[in-house]
Amino acid sequence: MKFCPQCGGNVSLRTPPGDHLPRHVCDACGVVHYQNPRLVVGCVPEHAGRILICKRAIEPRRGYWTVPAGFMENGETLQQAAARESREEARVEVEIGSLLSIVHVLHAEQVHVFFRAQLQRPEFAPGPESLEVELVEPAGIPWTEIAFASTEFTLRRFLEDRALGRDGYHFAEFNKRLPLP
Amino acid sequence: MKFCPQCGGNVSLRTPPGDHLPRHVCDACGVVHYQNPRLVVGCVPEHAGRILICKRAIEPRRGYWTVPAGFMENGETLQQAAARESREEARVEVEIGSLLSIVHVLHAEQVHVFFRAQLQRPEFAPGPESLEVELVEPAGIPWTEIAFASTEFTLRRFLEDRALGRDGYHFAEFNKRLPLP
Repeated sequence: MKFCPQCGGNVSLRTPPGDHLPRHVCDACGVVHYQNPRLVVGCVPEHAGRILICKRAIEPRRGYWTVPAGFMENGETLQQAAARESREEARVEVEIGSLLSIVHVLHAEQVHVFFRAQLQRPEFAPGPESLEVELVEPAGIPWTEIAFASTEFTLRRFLEDRALGRDGYHFAEFNKRLPLP
Repeated sequence: MKFCPQCGGNVSLRTPPGDHLPRHVCDACGVVHYQNPRLVVGCVPEHAGRILICKRAIEPRRGYWTVPAGFMENGETLQQAAARESREEARVEVEIGSLLSIVHVLHAEQVHVFFRAQLQRPEFAPGPESLEVELVEPAGIPWTEIAFASTEFTLRRFLEDRALGRDGYHFAEFNKRLPLP
């Protein structure tokens, strides 16, 4: 941030009185522009034991697989965001279920939240941000071609919990900008 | 937002090609500035059955009671944010426990996340954003002077769960800018 979104003045990075961190402060109007983590919301849609995955048509990680997820919008709930992303990326209607994972992606300044979900019908198609959509058995998950660490963490916890008949939620944090090992 | 934070150009509200919502787009450099909900994170600190509450020294809702909570910063986890806010607002060290509530505050474009927490020692003092801090029995909670609907929802679920020996998490949504009934 170089310019004030409100008045167009020059912005400098300095610690306001009483604060403990450097902030973007407008030299002209004095407004402090806080920057906070963004929420990315998604789900693991399931149908008769199979899981819906999408191959990304956009960067980052184009050509790698993920589950429907994306930036939360103002005016919607986490559950509505997860359902909307499923509609946009895989043309499916899902029923959002229990909370599955919350992943702190510290290097990206994001918090990822995933839910379990039921696919109403096994009908799907790639939206503009997907190259392909598939409904796969657990054994068919392309683990070496998963787009993000948060996706892999979420899918593994989902399968473990399902095998044990559990319905838990799981926290994780990642702190480097690296592809999966 | 009137000016582009990156180039200082004029910003207009229009729907970019392929998008479905109006965004703040820079007329000069073309960058799209997305706006997303902010995370507010807090906890219900408990000690020997009593609950720590803070009287707000700042607006909004100055003079009303709440639990430690505030905007999540980049570079921290939800749990770290809840512990930091407890330190700042009540000068306490807490051990963050299980997830307690996720509240969509749609009119404020915020998602509030609260955890259970244990207070290490019953020692506390108001930080600069608090007028008073108290450790109260459930019967001593000033229900008519609670600052926010999300605080009241969270405290009520906390007490219900504790009475039943449960440890669940709870979703809610609020969609109007009104004081509590």
